[in-house]
Amino acid sequence: MTRGRFITLEGGEGAGKSVQRDRLVAALRAVGIGVVATREPGGSPSAEVVRDVLLAHGLAWQPLSEALLHAAARAQHLVETIRPALADGHWVVSDRFNDSTRAYQGAGQGVPAETLDQLDRMVVGDSQPDLTLILDVPAEVGLARAQGRGQGSDRYEAMDLSFHERLRASYRAIAKAEPERCVLIDATGDLEAVATAVRAAVQTRLGVAL
Amino acid sequence: MTRGRFITLEGGEGAGKSVQRDRLVAALRAVGIGVVATREPGGSPSAEVVRDVLLAHGLAWQPLSEALLHAAARAQHLVETIRPALADGHWVVSDRFNDSTRAYQGAGQGVPAETLDQLDRMVVGDSQPDLTLILDVPAEVGLARAQGRGQGSDRYEAMDLSFHERLRASYRAIAKAEPERCVLIDATGDLEAVATAVRAAVQTRLGVAL
Repeated sequence: MTRGRFITLEGGEGAGKSVQRDRLVAALRAVGIGVVATREPGGSPSAEVVRDVLLAHGLAWQPLSEALLHAAARAQHLVETIRPALADGHWVVSDRFNDSTRAYQGAGQGVPAETLDQLDRMVVGDSQPDLTLILDVPAEVGLARAQGRGQGSDRYEAMDLSFHERLRASYRAIAKAEPERCVLIDATGDLEAVATAVRAAVQTRLGVAL
Repeated sequence: MTRGRFITLEGGEGAGKSVQRDRLVAALRAVGIGVVATREPGGSPSAEVVRDVLLAHGLAWQPLSEALLHAAARAQHLVETIRPALADGHWVVSDRFNDSTRAYQGAGQGVPAETLDQLDRMVVGDSQPDLTLILDVPAEVGLARAQGRGQGSDRYEAMDLSFHERLRASYRAIAKAEPERCVLIDATGDLEAVATAVRAAVQTRLGVAL
């Protein structure tokens, strides 16, 4: 059994990650590839429990504690969902993964990069994504989209614009620092245009015709 | 305001930590010292939420994930409870702290010591206990006591004897490696004898007459 490929979608609020994940998963399945669609925080039974804790109202998590909770959830997500799927030959497409911790807890909330790197080595190790698609939109565009979804006041959506600009800058820096793993995708266009760009990136990088 | 002192009680199952914590707290208060009694996992509102997650039935945490959850809870415990109390001049006496992670997740469950040391530097840093009282009993004695309490089948109590022997050996090794911070107390005797030894250690190490 050939090991599957591991793709992550990353980006700030309103970048369109979850809809693009679903479109990509459909495109992969249409050519006969078995795919597990997942997300972070969460993605496995125990990791979803940690997600609920992170998103619970009334708890004041410090940035370091958030990073540790995300790390715990990610360790479970890898063991319960991602690694078994890849070993079975399935592809895995995740809405967020370890770059979200670098962007949100690191650039956004000030946890030192060295701390986050240590946690990433502990938890992810050699299970890094084969391909990361970073959906890039100006912070104000993404925020307007996220607020337009009307899904209630996400805690991060409530942060000021400079927070979201730090996220975007962090994601762009990650794409620049790791060009072999990452593709920066302009996500300002409509859903179809972005989906086409996502498929094109997967074709080019992973050699599959979509 | 003079900073308070931070005392931790450590040991395996059935060593008598919580009752000895309560006795020590009473003795300190009797001489006019303000004391905050606390515990791990937990000890602050958000840390108690993580405790509930750790102790929930039906979730299969990996040892590394447990260490990360304990680290997250500890970071919150320090910020919400321990450091403010010490800054206000109170003493803090905790039933378990960071040595429990070394013993249970490290020696007991195999998380590498270097990983746990990295987490400890991230989370505890300079907030190490001023004094750690390690209550030492043979594993089979502690287990018999714990089971005799009849408080249901704690997950660790259900582990085999060799697990508990590794815990004891780990605690004894910590006491030997850090003699300035730690006092190993023979906890095989009755409650009064152990309470007397605990008070004697606090008197000698922290210079308070109890």
